Amino acid sequence: MSELRKDPIVGRWVIIATERGKRPSDWANEPNIKGGGLCPFCPGNEDKTPPEIMAIRPLSDQRDVPGWEIRVVPNKFPALQIEGNLSPKGDGIYDILNGIGAHEVIIETPNHASDLADLSEKNFHDILLIFRNRTLDLKKDPRFKYILIFKNHGAAAGASLEHTHSQLIATPIVPKRVVEELEGSKRFYDFKERCIYCDIIRQEKKSKSRVVSDSNSYIVIEPFAPRFPFETWVLPQQHYSHFEDMPDHMYSELVKVLKDTLVRINKSLGYPPYNFILHTSPVQEPALPEYHWHFEIIPKLSKIAGFEWGSGFYINPTPPESAAQYLREVKL
Amino acid sequence: MSELRKDPIVGRWVIIATERGKRPSDWANEPNIKGGGLCPFCPGNEDKTPPEIMAIRPLSDQRDVPGWEIRVVPNKFPALQIEGNLSPKGDGIYDILNGIGAHEVIIETPNHASDLADLSEKNFHDILLIFRNRTLDLKKDPRFKYILIFKNHGAAAGASLEHTHSQLIATPIVPKRVVEELEGSKRFYDFKERCIYCDIIRQEKKSKSRVVSDSNSYIVIEPFAPRFPFETWVLPQQHYSHFEDMPDHMYSELVKVLKDTLVRINKSLGYPPYNFILHTSPVQEPALPEYHWHFEIIPKLSKIAGFEWGSGFYINPTPPESAAQYLREVKL
Repeated sequence: MSELRKDPIVGRWVIIATERGKRPSDWANEPNIKGGGLCPFCPGNEDKTPPEIMAIRPLSDQRDVPGWEIRVVPNKFPALQIEGNLSPKGDGIYDILNGIGAHEVIIETPNHASDLADLSEKNFHDILLIFRNRTLDLKKDPRFKYILIFKNHGAAAGASLEHTHSQLIATPIVPKRVVEELEGSKRFYDFKERCIYCDIIRQEKKSKSRVVSDSNSYIVIEPFAPRFPFETWVLPQQHYSHFEDMPDHMYSELVKVLKDTLVRINKSLGYPPYNFILHTSPVQEPALPEYHWHFEIIPKLSKIAGFEWGSGFYINPTPPESAAQYLREVKL
Repeated sequence: MSELRKDPIVGRWVIIATERGKRPSDWANEPNIKGGGLCPFCPGNEDKTPPEIMAIRPLSDQRDVPGWEIRVVPNKFPALQIEGNLSPKGDGIYDILNGIGAHEVIIETPNHASDLADLSEKNFHDILLIFRNRTLDLKKDPRFKYILIFKNHGAAAGASLEHTHSQLIATPIVPKRVVEELEGSKRFYDFKERCIYCDIIRQEKKSKSRVVSDSNSYIVIEPFAPRFPFETWVLPQQHYSHFEDMPDHMYSELVKVLKDTLVRINKSLGYPPYNFILHTSPVQEPALPEYHWHFEIIPKLSKIAGFEWGSGFYINPTPPESAAQYLREVKL
């Protein structure tokens, strides 16, 4: 079983994923993205994944056969597994938990060659509703404190399969970066009694220089202090702390905004690899006045990222004001 | 001039390096590492870098001409610049500083094709003394709170030039990750009155499973909760908080240990790209009983790093115990 281990100095939990079975010698000749050959996410290859958790399947109720539009399956090499107990234990100064959690893959379309940005609005909408529904289902399990939804698009962004898909990881602890955001927002709220993200939205709407798009329900900005060129945030204009707890119309409006944003990024940056990460509140928390869910989209452009993650020190050669202007002016 | 900008939520400072002049359109066709053609770090091309700050030059006192063994120059595209004042200012909820600091390049050898691990012990020793001497020189400027020394080796690790070199950045603020380490160490010290790194060393020496090498003066370990496969730490066995404040023999002994470690990594992982980062105490602080300087070496093996830096959530498929055993058993 995988282990969750805590760095004793900075308190960061890390998953040592023994189930993924990387022996040291496997690293010497690490293959790139698996594009050719048999794709386990293509229709007809349903037996190459673990049995499906759910699927959108308009014409039949049969499972694990072609005919689906979106398919959710457990990750074949899960970082965390559902069965078992956390069984916290110590080893001298070190802390360990069993690797309990869930690790699911959302196969976003049966069409191998499609890009997320090119999917139909209906298809995209269904994906967002699956993000919500899987979250609502998994949060019933009180062992799961956080649900992390993300997408690695392209080999350079960490995708190991070409066929477009997102991932969901339910974790028994709240990840460090989320804790930092929650604590920072709480500090601001305690001081001002306002949500800091709501304040950011107000200031960005006024100055306009970092706004990519501004619709009724969402605003897309390049943040003031971005770590990466073209780091892009998508925020609901109204305050919602939890992605999964919004009224229905917010998901259909999000489709348009996300599609528009991805198309702008693709057109202006030549279809770059990217990560998107849903930043939302811990699932067992009630609605929080201080935290505001949002998407962060990070095109993987610069390789000058090696030492950044070791130092926490970021050098970004593209001011967000230039990036925002560039994205605004894309011819669609 | 570059700007230092603070993320209002998590408090992370980021350098928006306008001097590096990346226009948005430059990203679409980002070239890889510049290997062929004219190398500005090769002898004979001294006029392609800014005038040298210092050099090891056994036969002459002339500057900016061939004949050097190691050469230190300002970065041609500095993230931060020496001249000026920090001039803190606000913009609504945002905080800004002028991009004051220093950004230097240590060209480690005149030989374009050499790898750091292959340099002579004398050459390597001189590099470490330059790290010390540049630090001692720059810390005289009270504006500089931290000196970050690092190496990006290989394109995937962020190197933009092939010719082996390290970099030094003097910053007017202490980077967030360093603050986290300092705070974590301080918490432990307040509780236990011991340095947490000294405790880690004691426990690792006892269990041995994560030790790569253990000499008189240094220990090399795979840390208990590594973010990355083969993440490797090199620590002095005795407590020193500042890299630059050690007795002379510690630098000559460090050469042997670092060379040995890099050779083990190269041989076992097929000369991977890597980053090394010197983690040391803020230069304006006195000797700290709670913090212990060390090197972190991070081979860039997995690409599954895209979402990690957005989430603070790390999945490492190689247990440090396996990595340590593999590195220990390398045939040298």
